[in-house]
Amino acid sequence: MAAPVTQLVHAAPARPRVLILGGGFAGLHAAQSLARLAVDVTLIDRRNHHTFQPLLYQVALAVLSPADIAQPIRGILRKQANVQVLMDEVTGIDGIGHRISLTSGGQMAYDYLVVATGATHSYFGHDEWAPLAPGLKTIEDATEIRRRVLLAFELAERQMLEQGWHPPLNFIVIGGGPTGVELAGAISDIARLYLRRDFRHIDPARARVLLLEGSPHLLSAYPADLSAKAEAALIRLGVEVRTNAHVSAIGPGWVEAQGEQGSSRIDAAVTLWAAGVQASPLGTLLGVPLDRRGCVLVNDRLNPPGMPEVFILGDLAHVEQDGHPIPGVAQPAMQMGDHVGRMIAADLASKPRPAFRYFDKGDMATIGRRAAIAKVEWPFKAHMSGLPAWLTWLTVHIWFLIGFRNRISVFATWIWSYFTFTRAARLITGDQHLPGWQDQAAGSASGRAPLPPDRP
Amino acid sequence: MAAPVTQLVHAAPARPRVLILGGGFAGLHAAQSLARLAVDVTLIDRRNHHTFQPLLYQVALAVLSPADIAQPIRGILRKQANVQVLMDEVTGIDGIGHRISLTSGGQMAYDYLVVATGATHSYFGHDEWAPLAPGLKTIEDATEIRRRVLLAFELAERQMLEQGWHPPLNFIVIGGGPTGVELAGAISDIARLYLRRDFRHIDPARARVLLLEGSPHLLSAYPADLSAKAEAALIRLGVEVRTNAHVSAIGPGWVEAQGEQGSSRIDAAVTLWAAGVQASPLGTLLGVPLDRRGCVLVNDRLNPPGMPEVFILGDLAHVEQDGHPIPGVAQPAMQMGDHVGRMIAADLASKPRPAFRYFDKGDMATIGRRAAIAKVEWPFKAHMSGLPAWLTWLTVHIWFLIGFRNRISVFATWIWSYFTFTRAARLITGDQHLPGWQDQAAGSASGRAPLPPDRP
Repeated sequence: MAAPVTQLVHAAPARPRVLILGGGFAGLHAAQSLARLAVDVTLIDRRNHHTFQPLLYQVALAVLSPADIAQPIRGILRKQANVQVLMDEVTGIDGIGHRISLTSGGQMAYDYLVVATGATHSYFGHDEWAPLAPGLKTIEDATEIRRRVLLAFELAERQMLEQGWHPPLNFIVIGGGPTGVELAGAISDIARLYLRRDFRHIDPARARVLLLEGSPHLLSAYPADLSAKAEAALIRLGVEVRTNAHVSAIGPGWVEAQGEQGSSRIDAAVTLWAAGVQASPLGTLLGVPLDRRGCVLVNDRLNPPGMPEVFILGDLAHVEQDGHPIPGVAQPAMQMGDHVGRMIAADLASKPRPAFRYFDKGDMATIGRRAAIAKVEWPFKAHMSGLPAWLTWLTVHIWFLIGFRNRISVFATWIWSYFTFTRAARLITGDQHLPGWQDQAAGSASGRAPLPPDRP
Repeated sequence: MAAPVTQLVHAAPARPRVLILGGGFAGLHAAQSLARLAVDVTLIDRRNHHTFQPLLYQVALAVLSPADIAQPIRGILRKQANVQVLMDEVTGIDGIGHRISLTSGGQMAYDYLVVATGATHSYFGHDEWAPLAPGLKTIEDATEIRRRVLLAFELAERQMLEQGWHPPLNFIVIGGGPTGVELAGAISDIARLYLRRDFRHIDPARARVLLLEGSPHLLSAYPADLSAKAEAALIRLGVEVRTNAHVSAIGPGWVEAQGEQGSSRIDAAVTLWAAGVQASPLGTLLGVPLDRRGCVLVNDRLNPPGMPEVFILGDLAHVEQDGHPIPGVAQPAMQMGDHVGRMIAADLASKPRPAFRYFDKGDMATIGRRAAIAKVEWPFKAHMSGLPAWLTWLTVHIWFLIGFRNRISVFATWIWSYFTFTRAARLITGDQHLPGWQDQAAGSASGRAPLPPDRP
């Protein structure tokens, strides 16, 4: 009996199938690094767009529009013939059968799996804080923060107009890392420079911005001199910096912090979370060793133990180099993505894979309208601060923005915003009510007396 | 016994208080028309931004960003010293006591009340259709429509990739007025020109766009020759136009229409509503005579009967001129707003108020990328169509866009989009699931056979 024989004659030489999970910096660079190789690439993301996360806080604070810093992944990879893009979510990984499962019920086989699904906020076991103190990872997070900040000004103005007083207009940023420092500086800018002329009854200069950090210093990943300069620059902008302050509770309209002088409850019009990150849950699906934050422990070929066909990149990867973990920022993510192409090319040529080594060009954080700090490692070593660091920050961020049109548009918007003191994207969209604060204010829970109007 | 006497000596001469409800074209023009008069103006809107509604469909179809066509009302009126802006919602009007109530519990007194709160969608008693077939009046509506249209393409691509077939990718627009025609033309453009290169597995050219209109002609407010030209232009773009088609039911993934050949059910990936408008409920709060759509019947001084201190403007006003009601579009709204200043100035000078007369400069509707129709009334009378009408449309809409920066930004985006065939704002934000269609497709309720892949 002759069994049916399929694919014996003229079967096309099987091209390895590479599945990339995640369209952030790491996933996108991995896809692009494979452009000239004889592989078929599928990039899967649950969103249709790549987000330029370093500028997210500018969307949150009404400088830029979402479309300025986000681009459809399909559009970015349009010209690359060996990539297809799929908007879907992964629900399971079968590391032995080399298959993934998708929410839509489908399955896909892979020869190489690249996992670059990044990280999200961690509330350190207090997930109930999430609606009270949103973090900043997605476009939706950014428009939600924009909504809350602008709405707080509108409500204070309304209360002055209708009742002659308003509760404290405090903006509390929890976490003194780069995102927290950027948010605090930018809110202070908004209050002092941009909104002063728009609100006639409240005095936006009276809006307080508080930055709470649990450790003794802001920006603890930076050298001490830069960290101190950042703190001084924030204080010059009017930000109240409280270090050694541990947040113990968050409620609607307040934050409780434990500091050196004991515990205190601070009124909060808006509370923002920039304190912790945890890795995407895809590490768990793989069933491999993870670190405390859920990052996958990988070797210098970016493989988890015993899985040479799986690469973990970006914020999801825990890679040790010279005894320290590589930081979860954009630069190493891009370099890991680029390295995937080199390793698969080596496989196709039956050569040994090169080891990954992070080449650190430096790091920077911006503080408001005209200040930044930068630790430059390449092409020369330097610590920069103030205006020179800010100009460097501007140049680097424009340069790395995805897409020519976005670069022009963002540059034009910045120039406009800088010289006219206006912000282009001051839109309150979505729900027109602010959770917590307004109710608390109306109930006057803390029994405070009405404030007199600031201006006659 | 001497009673305390207040405000007898040196009391400032009381300046009339003008309350304007609504920051659309009519309310904004009313506020600006009062700039040089000795009155105190308060403009109240429940949103913080003015929306340039004629270009909303371009946000819905991923050409422009929300911030391109919406601006904070405070920003627009920043330089006008006698205006204050309040973000709040009106819950009651006391026409005898001359006071309004606000959601926040406060009350405000007025000497003049200007009501310009516009109109919203009408589902003709079928409000349950609203989530199935969104209309287009606000920025949130526009981003919701953008989400649904882009997501439908993503889902069809996903189904081709994972299952080898996809349900019909039909876009159904209900209502053949200017908004329906603009939406249908623009969706057809998206499918043919912009998305073709982005989706490798579905053939976007096979996406059908259907425009359903209950009456025998599209754009029934226009002269017959222009209406016929618009229909021909839509058909050239690939839109299937069905006139005399009455929608009798809408469900998740389908629309039932009754036409000349009886009733039929059409599969729908996305259904959009552009069929009816109804006036804002504020007319009801006034307790004055309304027309069928809820518009307030006013005289040629824009007053409801017996209320000379109340002016009704824009889409909320039913004004008869030469035996016809003035249409609910931007031009008469702006002119009514301007007229408020003239009438209050006459009052202040103790002169009779001038009558309002709508000066019709013409009207236009655009159909896709390079066609439009225009009925020009001034400075000359003409019927235009095709490219000349489209260039006129372009010029007029850029000119009337609020704000210098927005004009430049929109113009640059249009040039870019026109020559590169890309759309800048193709972001899917919010919920990443499409209601109805996907479920129906997965269940294959209509028992259709899987489609073969379009391309080998």
